[in-house]
Amino acid sequence: MATIADVAKLAGVAKATASRALSGQGYVAPATRERVADAAHALGYIASANASGLATGRSQSIAVLIPLINRWFLAEVLQGLESALLAAGYDMTVYNVSHMSANRSRVFDFFLVRRSFDAVILVGIDASATELETIQRLDKPVACVGAPIDGLDSYVLDDYRAAQLATEHLLGLGHTKIVFVGGPQNHFHDNDPASSLVHSDRFRGYSDAMTLAGHAAAITHAPTPLDLESGRQAGRRWLAHPDHPVTAVLAESDEVAFGVILAAQELGKRVPSDVSIVGIDGHDYAETFGLTTVQQNPQQLGMSAVSDLLERVTGDDERRHPSPVAPDFVVRHSTTAPPR
Amino acid sequence: MATIADVAKLAGVAKATASRALSGQGYVAPATRERVADAAHALGYIASANASGLATGRSQSIAVLIPLINRWFLAEVLQGLESALLAAGYDMTVYNVSHMSANRSRVFDFFLVRRSFDAVILVGIDASATELETIQRLDKPVACVGAPIDGLDSYVLDDYRAAQLATEHLLGLGHTKIVFVGGPQNHFHDNDPASSLVHSDRFRGYSDAMTLAGHAAAITHAPTPLDLESGRQAGRRWLAHPDHPVTAVLAESDEVAFGVILAAQELGKRVPSDVSIVGIDGHDYAETFGLTTVQQNPQQLGMSAVSDLLERVTGDDERRHPSPVAPDFVVRHSTTAPPR
Repeated sequence: MATIADVAKLAGVAKATASRALSGQGYVAPATRERVADAAHALGYIASANASGLATGRSQSIAVLIPLINRWFLAEVLQGLESALLAAGYDMTVYNVSHMSANRSRVFDFFLVRRSFDAVILVGIDASATELETIQRLDKPVACVGAPIDGLDSYVLDDYRAAQLATEHLLGLGHTKIVFVGGPQNHFHDNDPASSLVHSDRFRGYSDAMTLAGHAAAITHAPTPLDLESGRQAGRRWLAHPDHPVTAVLAESDEVAFGVILAAQELGKRVPSDVSIVGIDGHDYAETFGLTTVQQNPQQLGMSAVSDLLERVTGDDERRHPSPVAPDFVVRHSTTAPPR
Repeated sequence: MATIADVAKLAGVAKATASRALSGQGYVAPATRERVADAAHALGYIASANASGLATGRSQSIAVLIPLINRWFLAEVLQGLESALLAAGYDMTVYNVSHMSANRSRVFDFFLVRRSFDAVILVGIDASATELETIQRLDKPVACVGAPIDGLDSYVLDDYRAAQLATEHLLGLGHTKIVFVGGPQNHFHDNDPASSLVHSDRFRGYSDAMTLAGHAAAITHAPTPLDLESGRQAGRRWLAHPDHPVTAVLAESDEVAFGVILAAQELGKRVPSDVSIVGIDGHDYAETFGLTTVQQNPQQLGMSAVSDLLERVTGDDERRHPSPVAPDFVVRHSTTAPPR
């Protein structure tokens, strides 16, 4: 069986270079990498993960827990995580743990412990006390992305500030009849990509801004799941409300905002002259819909989490205590002064 | 250290039951599973993947290669794969291999061989001859989802039939000036979720139907990346084309179709009375946009692939030769007869 020395010889490089090229750890010029890969291929060289694991004590593998994959925010985070992990020579094993799934406890109690991951990343997860205890008992570096968890390094948008900024923008334009559309009434929807903490932070950002501006009496919450069709239905209800006229909508997610825009079109209301609409996300579609929104960058959140976490895996495992990311406000064509 | 026997005793079940409950292999009543998980948790029981791997010769781990995660079709397939794998007690390790990425060869030459996966799933991948050779050399069951590959079990929509159905629907309504929007001109876009074979099958389905109906001269291809904004730009161009009036659009994906609908609204054209629009996908948003479309079910494709593949992992490794899935045509409010 071919060894790394055989590969290095055929490629005409040092053994260390061949090893770096194949493991993805450390820099190797692309042309050299290709020559080494060709040599490995020609010789049928098979790298042994166990052997390299024995040497470093690491598995080069990271577990990611995520409630759903097919949602914009979550898929974007996953994309950011995977590209950063792959570039650093790490595998990503994904576990789908929806809020109510029967398989959820098996992931915590069985899957996470049967394989020796170097670290664990929780994406948009509301973890129970028992689940957190299981995670802590693994004694591995852990990070959260998207939804914060007390006691763990959390890579998140400053959700409070995001909603506050959006509300202040609408107040500044002269709106006071602003309805907050999105999130749960009492309990949490299984299908919502945002955790309950994300929702409550956003709602507080809105209601504090309204209160500070002297419009506490106008605070209105329209609970809605965070998807396009739910946004459209909420839009139909609130843009034509007989007893409760609104001039502006703060949507908890961009997809909800797109739905409200479609509802406005159906009702013959012009955006923004009849009704102003703001979102939170920075979804790929925001530019096309002309949506004023609070931009977050989920791929970047994922990449920052990986960068810190891999430092903790290979160096001192100290928490990094990252700050919530300041939101970026992008004004487009869905907001203006209220109609006279 | 606690053993599986300790866990079984505490939970008051047989050892085999405790083992099934924790491994996820075979049926265990939910209440029993919970009791076993509680016992394992209380005792700090840690299952050993290596030990169970030594016994069965399997790693209970599947590799998934996918060009992008944050695209509707690909994220849906991934969701279907993960839920089916998790239910069967398998891990899913995801590798992001975009068409042009420098990391792509590392995934084939290094990552796939360093870990002992039980099987490999290629999702929407256009694989080169060298890449296929590497995969075959692993000597593991392999399946493709979304994009077919010669010589491998492929779980795909009947793309030719999908486009043919959509075209026949428009022809049946009386349209002849039908433009096909989507896909590459000459080479393939890195960011397109569909493989080049998917595109060429769809385009052939359209052009054959046009030819058969005696409208070969009207065959028109508007190359466009498969996203909302590109669809809108193509819509603006083609719905207002001075020399080439069209009465209907066949969009290669639903997202392109949504973009064309938005363009029609901007141009003051009514859908469907001024222009008819058909998509291919069955995207979550299709209902909200009232889009007539050819429905596929990517989650189901993923689940079918897993079901066959795990049979091949645990039983005879014979190819299953699945047939392309017949498309489901859904008529909504975006198509009618051409304007007089």
